[in-house]
Amino acid sequence: MIYFDNSATTKPYKEVIESFVKVSNDYFANPSSLHKLGGQAEGLINQARNQLAQLLNIKPREIYFTSGGTESNNLAIKGSAMMYKNRGNHIISTTIEHPSIRESLEQLKGQGFEITYLPVTSEGRINIKELKESIREETILVSMIHVNNEVGSIQPIREVGEILKKYPKILFHVDHVQGVTKVPLDFHECGIDLCSISAHKFHGLKGNGLLFIREGLRISPLLTGGNQEWTIRSGTENVAGIVAMAKALRLSTEKMEKELPNVVNVKKIIIEELKKENEIIIHTPFENSAPHILNFSIKGFKSEVVVHALEESNIFVSTTSACSSKIKTVSHTLLGMGVDEEIAKSAIRISLSFENTDVEARKVIKALQQTIQKLGRTMINNEV
Amino acid sequence: MIYFDNSATTKPYKEVIESFVKVSNDYFANPSSLHKLGGQAEGLINQARNQLAQLLNIKPREIYFTSGGTESNNLAIKGSAMMYKNRGNHIISTTIEHPSIRESLEQLKGQGFEITYLPVTSEGRINIKELKESIREETILVSMIHVNNEVGSIQPIREVGEILKKYPKILFHVDHVQGVTKVPLDFHECGIDLCSISAHKFHGLKGNGLLFIREGLRISPLLTGGNQEWTIRSGTENVAGIVAMAKALRLSTEKMEKELPNVVNVKKIIIEELKKENEIIIHTPFENSAPHILNFSIKGFKSEVVVHALEESNIFVSTTSACSSKIKTVSHTLLGMGVDEEIAKSAIRISLSFENTDVEARKVIKALQQTIQKLGRTMINNEV
Ligand SMILES: Cc1ncc(COP(=O)(O)O)c(C=O)c1O
Ligand SMILES: Cc1ncc(COP(=O)(O)O)c(C=O)c1O
Repeated sequence: MIYFDNSATTKPYKEVIESFVKVSNDYFANPSSLHKLGGQAEGLINQARNQLAQLLNIKPREIYFTSGGTESNNLAIKGSAMMYKNRGNHIISTTIEHPSIRESLEQLKGQGFEITYLPVTSEGRINIKELKESIREETILVSMIHVNNEVGSIQPIREVGEILKKYPKILFHVDHVQGVTKVPLDFHECGIDLCSISAHKFHGLKGNGLLFIREGLRISPLLTGGNQEWTIRSGTENVAGIVAMAKALRLSTEKMEKELPNVVNVKKIIIEELKKENEIIIHTPFENSAPHILNFSIKGFKSEVVVHALEESNIFVSTTSACSSKIKTVSHTLLGMGVDEEIAKSAIRISLSFENTDVEARKVIKALQQTIQKLGRTMINNEV
Repeated sequence: MIYFDNSATTKPYKEVIESFVKVSNDYFANPSSLHKLGGQAEGLINQARNQLAQLLNIKPREIYFTSGGTESNNLAIKGSAMMYKNRGNHIISTTIEHPSIRESLEQLKGQGFEITYLPVTSEGRINIKELKESIREETILVSMIHVNNEVGSIQPIREVGEILKKYPKILFHVDHVQGVTKVPLDFHECGIDLCSISAHKFHGLKGNGLLFIREGLRISPLLTGGNQEWTIRSGTENVAGIVAMAKALRLSTEKMEKELPNVVNVKKIIIEELKKENEIIIHTPFENSAPHILNFSIKGFKSEVVVHALEESNIFVSTTSACSSKIKTVSHTLLGMGVDEEIAKSAIRISLSFENTDVEARKVIKALQQTIQKLGRTMINNEV
C-alpha cells in the first residue's frame, strides 16, 4: 500500500498507540479526583504539557487541550469574538482557510461581525499590502492558515505578526494544523496570540488537539463545566490521548530533523515527472510551499475517477481536502487562486509523510501515467 | 486495590482498548476521504452508530458523536438556546445539575436568558408540581439530570416527559451520563428530545460521548467546519474511540442484565453497616436512587482527610464529584438537598462498578471504622 493522503490524516506511530494503551490501562483515574490515582493521572497531563511546551517553544501554561483542530479553531475564533466584541466587530482572514475557520467566521456574521477575506495570488499567498489596508479601527482579530491543507502554500506569518505588533488590540490566530513538524513556526517570535494544532496530522490520535493561548491573554470558553484547563475548556481530560499526542510530537519532531530533506526529495521527483505530462497542471508553487503537499490537475479527468483508478493499484491520494471530498463542492482554495472551475474539478492532492520513499514516488508516477492512458482511451471511445 | 470511584471514571474494559488499538492501526484513514480506506473507516462509524442505536433503542440518525459528556451537555443547552431564542428566553433546570449544565446555563444568562432552577427535596428529587408551575409562555427548554452524580438520586424523567408532551414547543434535555447501564431510560417513551452520554462512565474511553437528538429536531452547532455529523458537529471523527464506545456500551449492557442485583447487594451491605455508626449521616435515599452511588458524611471529619486515610489502605473513594474536588467548594447538590454546610464538607461518595464485590464492601467498612477510630483519637489528642 502506498499512502499519499497524509494531510487528511496520518497513521499513528506504534509507540503512540503503546503509550495510549499503557495510560488507559494503568492510569485510568479522573485527573480531577483527589486521591493518589487522580494525582498520578494529573501528573501525566502535566508531564505531557511540559514536553509539548518544550517542543513548541512555549510555556506549559499556554497550552489548552481540546478535541482536535476543529475545536481549537472554533475556540480561537468564537472565544476571541465573544470576549472582545465590545472592542470591535471586524475580523480579517483569507479566502483559503480550512472550513473550521470559514464556517466559524460565517456563524459570527449572523451575530453582527464583519469579515474581510483577503484574496490570494495564483501561488496561494496573501498580499501584505492588502492586509495592511484591510485593518480598521474595529478590527479585533486576524486569523490565518499557516500551511494550506489543499495546496501547501505558506502564508508570511512572520511578516503579518510584525505588522500586527503595531496593533496590540488585534489578536493574531494561526491555524498551524498542517504546518506542525513540516514548516517550523516560532509562535512567540512571530507575535502569535493563538495557534491551533491537531494530533492526528502528525501520527498522533484523532480526537486530540491543543490551542496555544499566549500567556496573559483570556478568551471566552466554548465548553463550560468542571473548569478544567484553567476554565477555558471543561470536560474530563483525555489523559491517554494527551500523553499520546506528546509522544507523537516528540517522534515527529525528531523525524523532521532527520528526514525532511527526504520528503522534499520525494516531492521534487513527483513534480519533475508530472511536469513532463502535457495533461497536467501543477497548482502547488515550487517555492514557498510545504514539503509534503502537492496539488495538480489532470485536464479532462474528474478527480474522483483518478482517485478510484489509483486505489486499484493500492495507491491512496485525495481529491481536495478530506472534509469537502464527499460534498462535491469545488475547492475554495483553488478558485481563490484563480484556477478555472473545470480545472479545479480535476484536482488531485498528494500529501506525504516521513515514511514515504522515492521508490513509492516513482510507482505513483507510473500508475498516474497508466491511468491517463487507460482513462484517456475510454474517454475517446466514449466520445465515438 | 479497591476502586470505589466509578462515577468519576471507570477502568476501560480490556476488549474496549483492544478495539481501539485494532482500529487505530488498521483503519486509521480519515472517514471523509473518498478512497477505499476512507470508506472502510466510515463503514466502522456506521456500524458503531447502528450498534449504539440498537442498544439505546433509538435510530442511528439520532446519534451525534461528541468529545464527551461535557460537550454533549454544552451542545444540547447552547445549541437549543441559539436555535430557538426567537421563541423565548426561559429555561428550566434543577439546583443539582452537573457543572457542564449549570455553567452553560449561567453563560446563557449573560445573553438575556432567564433560568429557573427547581429546588429538590431532602431526597434530591424535584417536585412535579413546582415544575408545572414554573412553565411560562417563553419557556423553550427543560434540562434535567437523570441520575445525580453526587448522591445518585433519580429524577422522575417519565413524569416530566409526560407533562411536557402538552408543550410541544418546549424541548426536553436529559443528562443521562450517570444513568447509562445503571438506571434504564427509554428516550422516546419518555418524550426526550436531547440526551447526553459519555463513554468513560461505562468502561469506554475518555474523550468520547454522544448526544441523542430526536429525529426531525434541529439545533445549532457549537463546532462548525467540515460538516461531519450532519453539520451539527464538525471535526475529524475519532473513529477508534467511537468503535470502542460501542463495544463498551454492549459489554456494559450485558453486565447490567446479569450483575445489577450484585451491585445493589454491595450497596445494601455498605448502607446497612454505615447505619450502625453514630457519626455517619447517609445522604443517598435508599429508595429511588441509582444502584451504584452512595453518599454519606462522617460528622466532624473533613472529606479530604478521609479520602487520604482510605487511600493508605489502597481504597479509592471521592469527596463530592471529581470536577469540584479540587476547587473545594461545598457540594451544590447537598446544599440543594438542605444538608447543613458543615455536614456537607464531610461528604464521601462511594461509586460502584459491576466488578466490585461484597468482600470489597466489607473491607471498606472496616477501613472506614478504623479511620474513624484513628482520626477520632488524633482529633481528641489535638483538642487536649
Ligand atoms: C488546516 C487545517 N485546519 C484544521 C483542521 C481540522 O482538524 P481536525 O481534523 O483535528 O478537526 C484540518 C484537518 O482536518 C486542517 O487541515
Ligand atoms: C452527570 C454528569 N454529566 C456530565 C458529565 C461530564 O462528562 P465528561 O466527563 O465526559 O465531560 C459528568 C462527569 O463528569 C457527569 O457525572
